[in-house]
Amino acid sequence: MTRDLTITAVRLTPILVADPPLLNTQGVHQPYTPRLIIEVETADGITGVGETYGDTKYLEPARPFAEKLVGRQVSDLNALFVLADEVAVDSARVSGQVDVGGLRGVQTADKLRLSVVSGFEVACLDALGKALGLPVHALLGGKVRDAVEYSAYLFYKWAAHPEGVASEKDDWGAAVDPAGVVGQARAFTERYGFTSFKLKGGVFPPDEEIAAIRALAEAFPGHPLRLDPNGAWSVETSLRVAAELGDVLEYLEDPALGTPAMAEVAAGTGGAARSASGKGGGGRRAGVPLATNMCVTTFAEIPEAFAKGAVQVVLCDHHYWGGLRNTQQLAAVCRTFDVGVSMHSNTHLGISLAAMTHVAATVPNLHHACDSHYPWQSEDVLTERLTFDGGKVTVSDAPGLGVELDRDRLEFLHRRWRDDDGTLRDRDDAAAMRIAAPEWVTPPVPRW
Amino acid sequence: MTRDLTITAVRLTPILVADPPLLNTQGVHQPYTPRLIIEVETADGITGVGETYGDTKYLEPARPFAEKLVGRQVSDLNALFVLADEVAVDSARVSGQVDVGGLRGVQTADKLRLSVVSGFEVACLDALGKALGLPVHALLGGKVRDAVEYSAYLFYKWAAHPEGVASEKDDWGAAVDPAGVVGQARAFTERYGFTSFKLKGGVFPPDEEIAAIRALAEAFPGHPLRLDPNGAWSVETSLRVAAELGDVLEYLEDPALGTPAMAEVAAGTGGAARSASGKGGGGRRAGVPLATNMCVTTFAEIPEAFAKGAVQVVLCDHHYWGGLRNTQQLAAVCRTFDVGVSMHSNTHLGISLAAMTHVAATVPNLHHACDSHYPWQSEDVLTERLTFDGGKVTVSDAPGLGVELDRDRLEFLHRRWRDDDGTLRDRDDAAAMRIAAPEWVTPPVPRW
Repeated sequence: MTRDLTITAVRLTPILVADPPLLNTQGVHQPYTPRLIIEVETADGITGVGETYGDTKYLEPARPFAEKLVGRQVSDLNALFVLADEVAVDSARVSGQVDVGGLRGVQTADKLRLSVVSGFEVACLDALGKALGLPVHALLGGKVRDAVEYSAYLFYKWAAHPEGVASEKDDWGAAVDPAGVVGQARAFTERYGFTSFKLKGGVFPPDEEIAAIRALAEAFPGHPLRLDPNGAWSVETSLRVAAELGDVLEYLEDPALGTPAMAEVAAGTGGAARSASGKGGGGRRAGVPLATNMCVTTFAEIPEAFAKGAVQVVLCDHHYWGGLRNTQQLAAVCRTFDVGVSMHSNTHLGISLAAMTHVAATVPNLHHACDSHYPWQSEDVLTERLTFDGGKVTVSDAPGLGVELDRDRLEFLHRRWRDDDGTLRDRDDAAAMRIAAPEWVTPPVPRW
Repeated sequence: MTRDLTITAVRLTPILVADPPLLNTQGVHQPYTPRLIIEVETADGITGVGETYGDTKYLEPARPFAEKLVGRQVSDLNALFVLADEVAVDSARVSGQVDVGGLRGVQTADKLRLSVVSGFEVACLDALGKALGLPVHALLGGKVRDAVEYSAYLFYKWAAHPEGVASEKDDWGAAVDPAGVVGQARAFTERYGFTSFKLKGGVFPPDEEIAAIRALAEAFPGHPLRLDPNGAWSVETSLRVAAELGDVLEYLEDPALGTPAMAEVAAGTGGAARSASGKGGGGRRAGVPLATNMCVTTFAEIPEAFAKGAVQVVLCDHHYWGGLRNTQQLAAVCRTFDVGVSMHSNTHLGISLAAMTHVAATVPNLHHACDSHYPWQSEDVLTERLTFDGGKVTVSDAPGLGVELDRDRLEFLHRRWRDDDGTLRDRDDAAAMRIAAPEWVTPPVPRW
């Protein structure tokens, strides 16, 4: 078999994609959000696609990294991490602190590199799969399920972006109270068939969000519910919410910020005594499990968090864990320590949804529905959107990711990025909020 | 690309291979030891080979497992574990206790299944690599080194098996004292270029083994040395040996049996304060690191051992960890917890050496030379033996494992197994010892 897997070209295309006015504890989503589309081309003319964060701090290291890949094999995935270590990261771009603004956990140079690597790894896997005639899941050891379940990702939301701001219209309407949240949930079930629900919280005072979850529990009795205030609460508030909603929550996500605070909450709710399998000491099943995509977002944060019993479910996200294979390794670490695994999502397009679905299909201990922003993204760079059926995405058996890039759409969205004066190229939910509320500042944590 | 990766046939061939009279704390190696050779054939006529333990307790579940594979894809590796769970394991074959006799750690049904899976996983990877035109390391994400370093595996040894016992001759001579051990080490360096040395201990009283290591340190100053008494010592003895040899040992392997005892030794030597990277609190570099292939041989044993700081280096072994991909996951767990990784070996042939080399080439945090019994095996089932050059095995870039089965040799060794009356089909080092010393019983632990 003669086949040349050498990478001959890498194309980076930053884009801006429409995003509805979704609220979180930082502010509101911008009308357009940056993403980076990565294309890796082989000597045989095969193109693989990947997607990752598009903010400037990711674009900067992505460019020299892309140059390093030319001449290498698309199968050379372990080496991506070695190459990434050679790429300089502007220290001004990373604080070493938890980046509350970005809601993506601790910000370190290593993590920023992994976020870049992930997009390239997916592009290489897509190209490799196409070259070999194998779906990406087969390159990851094969699927253990034929469809991956997603949850409805509910947001408090305005009906529209502020007047006078360039934006795309959406038909979801407003959701700023329990009735609005339930209405949104109903629309989600009607359109996509989701059967579990996650509410992005930290927006309104806790009692209002408790009321929203109660309303969801009444409207959808027995369905798994999650609440995620992005670390906006104190330990005391977290414990109060956990006590009030313990009977209906599948898990409580990042109620308080940081491992020590999460450990306190877990100890207080009995969550720390809970294991993923229930096989732990005496069939432990007490308490509300705590999930996180903020205090455990790197391998380095795992030992302390696990030792303290601070989290019972880790939300993987191949973007910042460094790709699909690292996601499998994270799942192996969690399985070893009897900690649950679920999946986190930031704003993303169809390439990433395909990647998420492939890796999720291979993780045996993924026992929760995955999060996805995809229903909120009216724009994509694919010729055909991925679909949710009964809340699930069917795992593609086509070669590679099983998606096709729409070059016209890509060019259109890139032109929007090119034409932007710089205000939208770095996602800033607080800045977007200040357009509506000029006095807005990022709330101190804990907010409540 | 039309290619059919469907498994159409699986062949299991138990064999008996010559083994020299190597001594350990249990007794002596039998003159012939059982191995199982696994062949997986695809619809396209491609054959992949794997190798694992050949004792009856492995053969029994291997047979129904082999039947389950027919009709599945060779790329369907994650599903192997699901299928294995469906195979019954005779509870009489597993004690749930540490199997000191087999020197392979705890004996559970799950671990026995993983030991079976590993041989099939390697065979599937070999077939898949051949079908795709890719080396096995590329199927594991690609090599990060071009050659894998091995250590000289020194044994106390008789010149020959007891008189009257059918056996093959070897030209290594006897090694029952420090001079013999050093002579053996010199032969290893001359024949294979090894630069690090491991002595299988637990055979003679500790002072004699301390003297042997001292003699090695004098003969090979500055070279990494290891001593492995297979858990034969008490905590007190372990601490004494660690104190006496701390200046020359790369690591001390399983001095005492079980995690609690190992944790006591680690605490006493300062090993528990040592981290693999040295990045831990204040550049920790104190003490003799403890390595294990006895108290941590399954993922389930990791949390306790790591929490107690009982081991600083885990010896992976794809045979009992469940294959090459599980070995990578084990390495990821160790990396996460800043615990070192090295590689264990039982008696094995060239198929397993090739598999060990492929996976070792992909593990970034493998910072110790791997163990291998291969130099002791004068017989193999390959058309061409693998070679050590400067103590290293070059990582093959040929499709699959890069080895070719010698069917005549396989048949010859299988006939030996078929003709055996049953005495050698289940490895029993104590029984082999009783031929020379009829009063021999497996020594109680701790022996010293």
